[in-house]
Amino acid sequence: MENVEWIAKRAKKAAPTIARATLEERNEALLLLAEALQTKREYLLDENQQDITEAKQKGTAQPLIDRLLLTEERIADMAEGMRQLVALPDPINQVLETMERPNGLLIEKRAVPFGVFGMIYEARPNVTVDACALAIKTGNGVVLRGSGSAMHSNKAIVSVLKEALRQTSIHTDIIQLIENPSREEANRFMKLKGDIDVLIPRGGASLIQTVVNEATIPVIETGVGNCHVYLSNAANVELASAIIVNAKTQRPSVCNACETVLVERSFAEQHLHTIAENLRQKGVQLVGDETAQALHPQIGAATEEDWQKEYLDLSLAVRCVDGIEEAVAHIEKYGTNHSEAIVTEDDRERDFFFQAVDAAVLYHNASTRFTDGFEFGFGAEIGISTQKLHARGPMGLHALTTYKYTVKGSGQIKG
Amino acid sequence: MENVEWIAKRAKKAAPTIARATLEERNEALLLLAEALQTKREYLLDENQQDITEAKQKGTAQPLIDRLLLTEERIADMAEGMRQLVALPDPINQVLETMERPNGLLIEKRAVPFGVFGMIYEARPNVTVDACALAIKTGNGVVLRGSGSAMHSNKAIVSVLKEALRQTSIHTDIIQLIENPSREEANRFMKLKGDIDVLIPRGGASLIQTVVNEATIPVIETGVGNCHVYLSNAANVELASAIIVNAKTQRPSVCNACETVLVERSFAEQHLHTIAENLRQKGVQLVGDETAQALHPQIGAATEEDWQKEYLDLSLAVRCVDGIEEAVAHIEKYGTNHSEAIVTEDDRERDFFFQAVDAAVLYHNASTRFTDGFEFGFGAEIGISTQKLHARGPMGLHALTTYKYTVKGSGQIKG
Repeated sequence: MENVEWIAKRAKKAAPTIARATLEERNEALLLLAEALQTKREYLLDENQQDITEAKQKGTAQPLIDRLLLTEERIADMAEGMRQLVALPDPINQVLETMERPNGLLIEKRAVPFGVFGMIYEARPNVTVDACALAIKTGNGVVLRGSGSAMHSNKAIVSVLKEALRQTSIHTDIIQLIENPSREEANRFMKLKGDIDVLIPRGGASLIQTVVNEATIPVIETGVGNCHVYLSNAANVELASAIIVNAKTQRPSVCNACETVLVERSFAEQHLHTIAENLRQKGVQLVGDETAQALHPQIGAATEEDWQKEYLDLSLAVRCVDGIEEAVAHIEKYGTNHSEAIVTEDDRERDFFFQAVDAAVLYHNASTRFTDGFEFGFGAEIGISTQKLHARGPMGLHALTTYKYTVKGSGQIKG
Repeated sequence: MENVEWIAKRAKKAAPTIARATLEERNEALLLLAEALQTKREYLLDENQQDITEAKQKGTAQPLIDRLLLTEERIADMAEGMRQLVALPDPINQVLETMERPNGLLIEKRAVPFGVFGMIYEARPNVTVDACALAIKTGNGVVLRGSGSAMHSNKAIVSVLKEALRQTSIHTDIIQLIENPSREEANRFMKLKGDIDVLIPRGGASLIQTVVNEATIPVIETGVGNCHVYLSNAANVELASAIIVNAKTQRPSVCNACETVLVERSFAEQHLHTIAENLRQKGVQLVGDETAQALHPQIGAATEEDWQKEYLDLSLAVRCVDGIEEAVAHIEKYGTNHSEAIVTEDDRERDFFFQAVDAAVLYHNASTRFTDGFEFGFGAEIGISTQKLHARGPMGLHALTTYKYTVKGSGQIKG
């Protein structure tokens, strides 16, 4: 088993072979790799079963086992995801900007791959496939650090993908898996600045926090979503109810689901009871402040923790506020800069909300569930960035690229 | 003296007052602040003299004292720099992209300020003025951590700027100076994620390394420039000589000056002697590999350290190579991803160099000295980024902005 330093160096050394590959070569590689995943599905399922057996022996919770599980259908989906990338335009080798300077210098800003990106993630083996597919399309090398619990699956996937890569002009070393599951090895990985250009953690809050604290490599943070929907007195009630129900219940376990609803006082007095009923019919458990509790007998008491929490289940906190400024202050205090929504028929309120709230995506009269690379039309998604540097919100292929300036001269010197 | 945590919180709290300010208000503030610097120049010069006196007592080297020194002319230049920002277009409040989705959602990508940026820098008091000016133009708050040796000057500048800000709608708290010079305070500053959005170190390699290692706040690295010029066999000799002389001698103390020249063997045999003579006439001291030494009696022996070094003076290392691939490999090994140049009349060599070399700015038949925000036409410069995330190469106002997505709907929910 090799140490991370060697693994990263090998990826860096091989990366130019994919950076130089044409769009056609990269697309052809994607099709070959997708084909290989399906041809070798029996092998992948067998290896995955070893992870599942070990997880069960350890008494792993059922939802985690479900995330770990591969099925024929899931393998077909992963392969299909790879094939869909083929149709997307080339994210690299584009001239983004041209500047002709008075001294005759022709400056061109060109989109180029990062070089090598690192991915640190938890159980789901489909992230392994996604990361490799995105690396190939964007012309990058990738070093993967998955979790020990998915190691048989990840090793099998990577060996199948690398074997398929042998039929192309791209060096197989552009895909690297860290097989040593130790935390110490992971910590050294996060400091390999110079060999790894950017690090993307995918997983829970504690994983992301560790990477942010330990890494010296620049990190793209894909963070927690404590998302709010604010219902103003000027909201349309049918619309408000439909949006809240959708944002909370359509898929409660994801980061763009709503966790707290803020309701302007007189709207709450008139309509909170109805909206709460609609939510309860979908199985939602409500807690709220004193005003909210007084408006519906089934709303329990919210604690400070409820305002902070990313429930990721069918719980919802409700708070009544005196107006948009109090709503914005609540979001400022408890929000995670992910997705925030306002429901109102008043455009001035909408504009104030759009200006004042510091988040990646702000919605007016729509569900927070649309924060997603596919819904934004990017055709792919690397994750949802909750930081402000480089990429914010849903990240498409573009987030895995940087640029360089090339300057053509005819002997210009500085005077 | 307040601790950094309070200082950062105060800047964050005040930041919305500048984010909301119109372009006219921000420009008016710049003019007022520039005026104040000139009106209060006697006070600034007096305070600066205290730093100079203390520096002399400590036996500080003359070049450092020179960087620390304020003069009437330097104050006028700083004020003029502020005024020049007024003419530049608004870097925020622009819609960068509009996407109308099939479901009717209207997604707009809007340029917005970061919020608050932090600046960690060394002796030069003009960085204090520049950082405040850039903050105002870009709608950001700023927290400044200068060096203890410039503390009297920095305090005086900040007090003059804040006094002038009182005449505007912008809260004076958007400018904050950390007055406690302790290293421990600086280290805590680098971890104030949530209050400070991005950290920009300006200074020598060891300062930048410390920030990269210690910070949990995202960093924009403005790094060291170990820049190369490669002279191919297909180079025009007059052009090659002029470019090398300019890149090395026009201002040797800056990061975009050339430190090593790589020369293809037969070009070296024919022309290195002449070029070395031209350089020596400008006072350049040369060291080189054995081939180079054999070609000119005044070329000393280069050691491994010479290839690594950012001289920042009139020293230059020379290495003869067998061709472009060896030149690219040398740059890959010793370069710092800053500015790299090729001199050749062969366009295929130029294109290979542009593709293969991983650096912020690549030049063909021009001096590396053009890597500069003003030369690129940005009208301002925050620094030169040698990293790949967010901003690469010369950074204009745009590098101090991020974006948010605003989404206008009419009741859309996710199916």
